[in-house]
Order: sequence, then structure tokens, then C-alpha cells
Amino acid sequence: MERAQTSRILESITVPTLLLNERRARRNIARMAEKCRRSGTQLRPHFKTHQSAAVGEWFRAEGVTAITASSVRMAAYFAEHGWNDITVAFPVNWREIDAINALAARITLGLLVESLETADFLRERLTHPVDVWIEIDSGTPRTGILWSETEQIAALVDRLRDHALIRLRGLLSHHGSSYGCRGEVQLKAAWTHSIERLLGVRAALAERGISGLNVSPGDTPSCNVVEDFSGLDEIRPGNFVYNDLMQVINGSASEKEVAVAVACPVVSKHAERLQIVVYGGGVHLSKDSFVDQQGRTTYGAVAFPTDDGWSESIPGAWVKSLSQEHGVIQCDAETFDRVNLGDLLIVIPVHSCMTADLLKHAVTLTGDTIDMLVLTAGD
Amino acid sequence: MERAQTSRILESITVPTLLLNERRARRNIARMAEKCRRSGTQLRPHFKTHQSAAVGEWFRAEGVTAITASSVRMAAYFAEHGWNDITVAFPVNWREIDAINALAARITLGLLVESLETADFLRERLTHPVDVWIEIDSGTPRTGILWSETEQIAALVDRLRDHALIRLRGLLSHHGSSYGCRGEVQLKAAWTHSIERLLGVRAALAERGISGLNVSPGDTPSCNVVEDFSGLDEIRPGNFVYNDLMQVINGSASEKEVAVAVACPVVSKHAERLQIVVYGGGVHLSKDSFVDQQGRTTYGAVAFPTDDGWSESIPGAWVKSLSQEHGVIQCDAETFDRVNLGDLLIVIPVHSCMTADLLKHAVTLTGDTIDMLVLTAGD
Repeated sequence: MERAQTSRILESITVPTLLLNERRARRNIARMAEKCRRSGTQLRPHFKTHQSAAVGEWFRAEGVTAITASSVRMAAYFAEHGWNDITVAFPVNWREIDAINALAARITLGLLVESLETADFLRERLTHPVDVWIEIDSGTPRTGILWSETEQIAALVDRLRDHALIRLRGLLSHHGSSYGCRGEVQLKAAWTHSIERLLGVRAALAERGISGLNVSPGDTPSCNVVEDFSGLDEIRPGNFVYNDLMQVINGSASEKEVAVAVACPVVSKHAERLQIVVYGGGVHLSKDSFVDQQGRTTYGAVAFPTDDGWSESIPGAWVKSLSQEHGVIQCDAETFDRVNLGDLLIVIPVHSCMTADLLKHAVTLTGDTIDMLVLTAGD
Repeated sequence: MERAQTSRILESITVPTLLLNERRARRNIARMAEKCRRSGTQLRPHFKTHQSAAVGEWFRAEGVTAITASSVRMAAYFAEHGWNDITVAFPVNWREIDAINALAARITLGLLVESLETADFLRERLTHPVDVWIEIDSGTPRTGILWSETEQIAALVDRLRDHALIRLRGLLSHHGSSYGCRGEVQLKAAWTHSIERLLGVRAALAERGISGLNVSPGDTPSCNVVEDFSGLDEIRPGNFVYNDLMQVINGSASEKEVAVAVACPVVSKHAERLQIVVYGGGVHLSKDSFVDQQGRTTYGAVAFPTDDGWSESIPGAWVKSLSQEHGVIQCDAETFDRVNLGDLLIVIPVHSCMTADLLKHAVTLTGDTIDMLVLTAGD
């Protein structure tokens, strides 16, 4: 019954379309929520991956009440859809202070601060209460104060502590280096190291009499493989709801745990170079890539459509290059011969957050259309 | 007057915003149109770069009546905005045959064919007349029949010639290898080589008694530097309306001819590594990159906002990495010290087509909002 439905959905696809395996996504959510419950840790999932009110409800069904967004606009979208505790895990953008105040008037809004300048700016310009997290760089230099700079962190705590509209919540970090790990052993070791640094900051501050700070780490590769989050107040993974090729490569998820893929019509075949060209390019898949074990730059894995969604990835095929609308798939002779013009091929994306952001909506294997945040000129 | 206006527009920007220098874009269009008029060649510009009905009118003002799109949906959008001669420069996607027929009922629709299978498919499924171009690979293997395969091309001509709904227009090629050229000399030599191949196909077919075929080449790097298109029936460059860092790198445009850039709020500064982080990441700029002369992977050049838009790019600064919303700018100490939290920096994109596609609308330096095609679940 459901298989016939999935076949009909695939049959009806005419353009590059994000397929969403709801069962896998819900299982990914349930598993992470369960690990958090057991650990006594709040799950504050990052919603930038799906950017969808409908998928948000799947989290709510697992008891999630607090979320993370990557922009003020994304936070406003989820606030409109009933979320009232949202951390914007991005340094405060001074230019959005009006939108920040408007949102802070409606919900519990968490902000990220990493400098005295921004602390002073907020002290002066806030009109409504906000939660503030100090961003700590626990070994992935992008934003945040380096974990070892205790003086600097303590000075920022001081600057944030005595303002009526600022509630200092704690220390937040994003351990993005986990994406460079390969395999569970490496992932767990890197996580332990990063958490030790974050907890070390808290301990160093405690020695100076600064207490009551929560800690909020959490990236998908680590949180997928770690079972016990005890001692952490919350975690903020996002990508795990869908996973993607990166998570398969770094060993934090199996292909059976990847919940999205892009259905692409086959528009061209070139036997002399064993290439299949699909309608599905950089504007659909994103130009995220990785270098595989053979040293090949790869923009996605390739699977066949099946009556329950899509197959395991085809060992002898990969997305070799992307232009705006074209995806060039390199493959072996057997795969080449199985595929005809007008068929669909399924591309498992390298980075599902970027792909979902580009495609703006998804179709589940049972035929529901999942809408996402779309920013327009007025936003 | 206008400068005060531009300053006010920049002042009001709160989130990553595509700035469009209308004067530069109109000058880019006018120059290409003038070269085509002098050459007796039709300009059929590719509208995938701007995807905007409003910008389309700037082309109409220069006498353009025929255009190129990269998808059936994009063609339908421009048909709604009064364009009635549109080539979809992408291999026919069988799965969109209903949309193709619907569009062919309304406008002169050009399609690309490169296989007997697709010719047969069209013969069977077309319900309205279409123009058909045979795609020739003139040295950039992606799609198209290799220029030297005269037999194969002749067979396809035969298959396309005697059908009431198919008007065979000619031979079309996209010489994408030009993007690998550096400097005008290389660009012109590569163009000459590619055009010789395309005209060679026409000559070889003529020897077999196949005549009346037009030729349609045209990529921006070549068309920016070539002055004379005599002997070519039409050209189809697209990117030239905006240009971008790629065109500057390959030597086909100067920075003063780049008409778009992204205004990005500064959200973080890290003196110890001379990095500035802006709100402006992969979802705004795209992950297109190039490797510069120092071997550095670069995601954009950086400029200061000025009262007439933006400065020349800053020699000592470049976009070093992108995550979903973050752009990390590496710079020299002087640049670092000039920039404050809350300022804007301007990123000149590597690939303006992808950046415009992501941002979905632009703001001109005189304050007009330029809307673009936005695909939604219903399309």
C-alpha cells in the first residue's frame, strides 16, 4: 500500500525534488531525544537543517520545547509557529537590533555574545529581556572566545551580569572540527577533548567565584556517536534529523539513517565517457563537496529509486561535477546500461542543510509536501 | 543626491543583501548589444544569471527580443513577463513534456536535442510546434554530440527534419572551457578554436546536402573579449550582465564592470588571527570558489561600502571560508583595524549567477527592489 504510494510519487516527479523519508527522520529524532532523556540533558536541536514548521512538529512529538536557529529571521519564523524558547546560535548582528527586540518581546530569545563591544551594545539597545550565552571556541576557530582565555571570558561575564534585561545563561560552543574526523573512535576522542575544554572554562570561572553557568555544546557527528551526555545542560545538534553523505563519511551515521535525497531526472547519457547527466545542479544540490578516498572531488552519492524510496548508494557511481542546473554522474558500465533517458536517479547530498535550504520544500515518501522558510524581499 | 541615496540604502541594510549597480549592468548590456548589432548577430542573452523580469526590461530597452533560459520553469516565468521567443538551453527533460507542450502553445519555444531517443520522444509526444537546436560539444564535454561525430549529427538531423511540429533551427554549443582561460589572448584563441569546430560541423553537414542551419554559441568570457561576431547567427552569453570575480580572474571583465556584490554585516572580529566574520555564508554567496595565485581557496573578494556603492576590492582581504551563515574574511592588519562590529563589508561574489539565485532579490544603488523568479512547491 505505502510502497505503491511511494512509486506513484516518484513517477509523478518532473523536476529536482527533495525526498524526505519521514520514518527515518522521526527515528533519528527519537533516538537523540531518548539519549538526552537518559542523560538528563535538554535537547535544543538546531532547526537550520530542516527550516520547516512541519518537521518541527516531529520534534515536539518527542518532547522538544527549546530550539536553536541560525538567524533572527529563522527564529521569527519558528516563533510564528509556536516555538517560544529559541537560541540564535550566531553572533549578535547589531544591524538587526530592532528585529531582536521585537522577537525578545514575544519569546525567550537566546543570543550569542563573544565581545565586550557587543555586550555594551546590548546593554544600551535592548528593550526586552534576553538570554545570553557566551560563545566559547573549544578548538574550532570561527567565532567565540578561545577556551584558554579565562581573563577575557571572566571580563565578559562581568559585563553581562548586572543588567536587568540580560540573563546570562552560560557557555556555548560549536565543535565543528568533528567534521574532519573519520570513524567513531576519532569522533569520541575529539568530543571528549572539546567537552573537557568547555567544562574547564566553567571550572576556571568557578574558581573566580563565577557560578551558575550552563554549558551548551553539540554538533551532529559527535552527538550521533556519543551515548551519554550527563553533565551537559543541553546539546544543540541539527543535521542528525536528516544526516547526509558527510555523516556517512565521518562514520557517525549509516546510509539507512540518511533521511533526505534529491530525485533528479536523467536528461543525457554519454557512453564514450560513461557519464549520465541529470537535471540537478548547483542550485539544487549546493556545491558542497568532499574528496573521497580515491582523491576524487565528489558532489553526491547516487542511488536508484525503489518502491520504498531509494536504494543503497551505487558503489560505481558518483556526482563528478555540477553546473547551475546540470549534475554530471560518472559511473561504471553496468550502471550506465541500467539507466535510461527520462528515468530518475537519486542523489544523496553531501550536506543536507544546504540542499534543503536550496530546494525550499520536500516531499515525503507518503506524499506530503513539507514547506520550509522562504525569505522574500520584505523580510 | 544619488550618493546620499546610496548611503541611506547601505545604512538601512540589516541582513546579507545583493546590491545591484544598475548603471554598470545597463552598460554591460548596451555594450554587448552594440557589438551584436555591428556584427549582424542576434543577441539571445541567457537570463539564468539575473532571473528577473525587471532586469529583463533593461535588455528589451536595448532591442533584445529573444532570450535563453536554463529550465522550463524559468522559461515559463519569462513567458509570463512578455517574452515570446525563448530557448531552454538544457537537454529536453522528458518528464516535463506537459509543461513543454503548454509553453510551446504560447510562445516560440526552443529546445535542445542531442540524442535520437529524445528526437523520437518529441516526435511522439509534442502537441505544439517547437524550435529545435542540436547541441554540439565543441570541446567542453558535458552535454552535446562531439563536433567530430558528423555521422551521428547527420543522423539526428534526419530524424528531426520531417516532423510537422519540429522546426530544426541549427547547431548550439556552450564553450564552458573558457572559464579555465586566463587573459584575453587565451580567451580569444580558445574561442576561435571552438567556433571553427562549430562552423566545421555546419560545413561537414553542408557537404552532405544539409543546409539552412544556424549556429548559436556564446559564453560570457569569450563574448566579453571578442568584438566581432560576424558569421554567427546568434550568441547566448548570460553572466556578462553582472560579471563576477571569475570574469575578473579570467581577464574578460574589470572590477568596474562587476554589477553585483553582497552587503554583509560584520558580526565578529578576531585580532589574534586577523579574521573578520560577516553575516553572509554559503546560503547567501554559494560555495563556488577558485584557487588564487597564492594557492588559496577563495570564496569572494572584499570591498568597503562607499557612497556610490562599493570600493575596488581590498588587496589584503579575501573570503577564506564559508559555513551556512558565516563568512570568514582573512585580512591584513590595516583592513582589520578599519572595520568595526556593526559595519557592512561588501563581498564580490565568485559566481554571480549562483549568488543571485540564492538571494532571490536585489536592491539597486538607487533603492529599487528587484524581484526574481522564486520556485515554490506548486511549480
